[in-house]
Amino acid sequence: MKKMSLLGSTGSIGQSTLDVVRQNKDEFAVLAMSCGRNLDLFAKQIDEFKPQLASVQYAEDIPKLREKLNFEGEILYGEEGNLAVATHGETDYLLSAIVGAAGLAPTYAGILAKKTIGLANKETMVIAGELMNAAAQKNQVKILPVDSEHSAIFQCLNGEKKAEIRRMILTASGGPFLHKPLEEFSQITVEQALKHPNWSMGAKITIDSASLMNKGLELIEARWIFDMDPDKLDVIVHPQSIVHSMIEFVDGSVMAQLGIPDMRIPIAYAMSYPQRLPNTLPSLDLKKISRLDFLEPNENKFRCLSLAKQVMKDGGTYAAVLNAANEVVVENFLKKKINFHQIPIFIEEALEKHCSKQPKSLEDILVADQWARETVSSKIAA
Amino acid sequence: MKKMSLLGSTGSIGQSTLDVVRQNKDEFAVLAMSCGRNLDLFAKQIDEFKPQLASVQYAEDIPKLREKLNFEGEILYGEEGNLAVATHGETDYLLSAIVGAAGLAPTYAGILAKKTIGLANKETMVIAGELMNAAAQKNQVKILPVDSEHSAIFQCLNGEKKAEIRRMILTASGGPFLHKPLEEFSQITVEQALKHPNWSMGAKITIDSASLMNKGLELIEARWIFDMDPDKLDVIVHPQSIVHSMIEFVDGSVMAQLGIPDMRIPIAYAMSYPQRLPNTLPSLDLKKISRLDFLEPNENKFRCLSLAKQVMKDGGTYAAVLNAANEVVVENFLKKKINFHQIPIFIEEALEKHCSKQPKSLEDILVADQWARETVSSKIAA
Repeated sequence: MKKMSLLGSTGSIGQSTLDVVRQNKDEFAVLAMSCGRNLDLFAKQIDEFKPQLASVQYAEDIPKLREKLNFEGEILYGEEGNLAVATHGETDYLLSAIVGAAGLAPTYAGILAKKTIGLANKETMVIAGELMNAAAQKNQVKILPVDSEHSAIFQCLNGEKKAEIRRMILTASGGPFLHKPLEEFSQITVEQALKHPNWSMGAKITIDSASLMNKGLELIEARWIFDMDPDKLDVIVHPQSIVHSMIEFVDGSVMAQLGIPDMRIPIAYAMSYPQRLPNTLPSLDLKKISRLDFLEPNENKFRCLSLAKQVMKDGGTYAAVLNAANEVVVENFLKKKINFHQIPIFIEEALEKHCSKQPKSLEDILVADQWARETVSSKIAA
Repeated sequence: MKKMSLLGSTGSIGQSTLDVVRQNKDEFAVLAMSCGRNLDLFAKQIDEFKPQLASVQYAEDIPKLREKLNFEGEILYGEEGNLAVATHGETDYLLSAIVGAAGLAPTYAGILAKKTIGLANKETMVIAGELMNAAAQKNQVKILPVDSEHSAIFQCLNGEKKAEIRRMILTASGGPFLHKPLEEFSQITVEQALKHPNWSMGAKITIDSASLMNKGLELIEARWIFDMDPDKLDVIVHPQSIVHSMIEFVDGSVMAQLGIPDMRIPIAYAMSYPQRLPNTLPSLDLKKISRLDFLEPNENKFRCLSLAKQVMKDGGTYAAVLNAANEVVVENFLKKKINFHQIPIFIEEALEKHCSKQPKSLEDILVADQWARETVSSKIAA
């Protein structure tokens, strides 16, 4: 039985993770879990999975949570709570599913505590990939990708040699605005942007999918998680989200992983690797789907993708700025304070102003992250 | 350097094999090769690859071949010649690319002589898979598939566990008559049937692709080459021939191998496995192809496929009869002695008449093969 910690249990990935645990009670036990502010759901989860340790975002929520359930375990809060969940003494696996840069510190702590990492928090690799890889190598820790694209690449690598890779090709759905003319981008509403054609996900990543920033972040994630030359990373738009990603090898063979768009498949793979766990999800029915399309991403329309590609090549603290600036603009877009078409504009401004350096520590990254947040926030407020 | 024998050097697969050797002269040397009656091409091949041993189909062709070139090596003929090529003392690899049941004896001899087998001659596995597997296991010989579909499946198996397979899905182009109504099948000409939409191949296999018998034979080949339960084998029509085949695993993940339709890719893989050799073929460009279709095969129209499926389930000597009857009817179709729509009719009659038994030796298989050839030939002549 795998004893695990779960960071971000009430989010979309967290809920799916617990569903995988629920379907495989003999394989997994969750000993520690953290959430944000969804106390009702968290109380139910604690009641069902009976962890030893729980953590919420704010101290004031601890008594509110206690009221909702009969729980004898410890309840912590904030970053300290997340760190305690990540490094829980009895677990050997950490599934990191907090959204955004907030996942960085506890994921890093999990690596230092020698937990195998199931990584859904892509920001960790995007902004601090080099440091994470160094720490993982030093502590002999495996980082297993949870994102469907990276899980696909990881599966395509099974039994293959890295030196024989010619190209890694990440697929992108293209989001809800694939065929919308650029001239209409300024009229896009929050409600429209939150309607992803294929995947049911949290708000932040759904907006990122609509702007294609999500694919840009995934490119940078792939660059680090697979230690791959940026020139070998490519994106193709595939509206049906059935082919989750591909690798082309030096002999021209392309290996692809396909599946229904259900995150429980890559989550379970990251949890059970190198085993595959049977499940009762419907089989992929290509006869019914009948057709798969592929097209070039339009970087003129989706400028976030081209900004991320440039950042991937430039390295340094640019990725921290890209990510932090994006978190701020998405938050402001969700609050209807900026328009959809302004998303790349604010980010590009921050990147242009930024003085990048080669990060030597998490502090260097967090300084750049903080600088970007303040810069973009004050720009939007102005 | 891999020293190899090549059976069937002037056929489509043989020529592509020699092209792979030509592009990788430091990796491979051909020490023995055989052909049918294409003496002009064979003379050029001998001149270029300088084998120690050559073999032709008929004794009378030996002096004709000698006239065409300056060759000091040995030239043999017929089955004895093929056997000598297959078991050449200095080679460790046999690429078996003879068309039809004629490939059975020399391939078997290659297994007994402990050569690694690159198998393009699917009939060997179709009619005698169980015996071939037993011989390969006893002699610790690897049989590596050359057919693009089986190569795809083989690549999808890299790093995976056989016990975790839910389904193997072979793709079929559907051939040139995919959308032709059954009522028009009786008017199909030889020229129409020889026009394959995607692959450039020999005449026999091109007709088999038009009738979907090729996919039926490939199902039976897959059943043995991967030792797979017939219930787990499935066919899907995919007109673009880009996805070469797929495996669905118990977790719902589907691994697929894709590539341009060029046989040099799977041939090279069977020759260089577990390495992949770089080549200068164009990359697969999914953006340009733009769309991949998938549909259910119509077994009502393509009765050969349903006959083969039944034979795969029934076992015994039925597969030998299916294959031999098909060879005879295709030969007669190419000679314009029967119509396209009669192909499955003659085969089904032979299967119905046949008294199957569990084959204990190659003789049992060759007896069934001979019986089917005579039965179908006399029926056609009648």
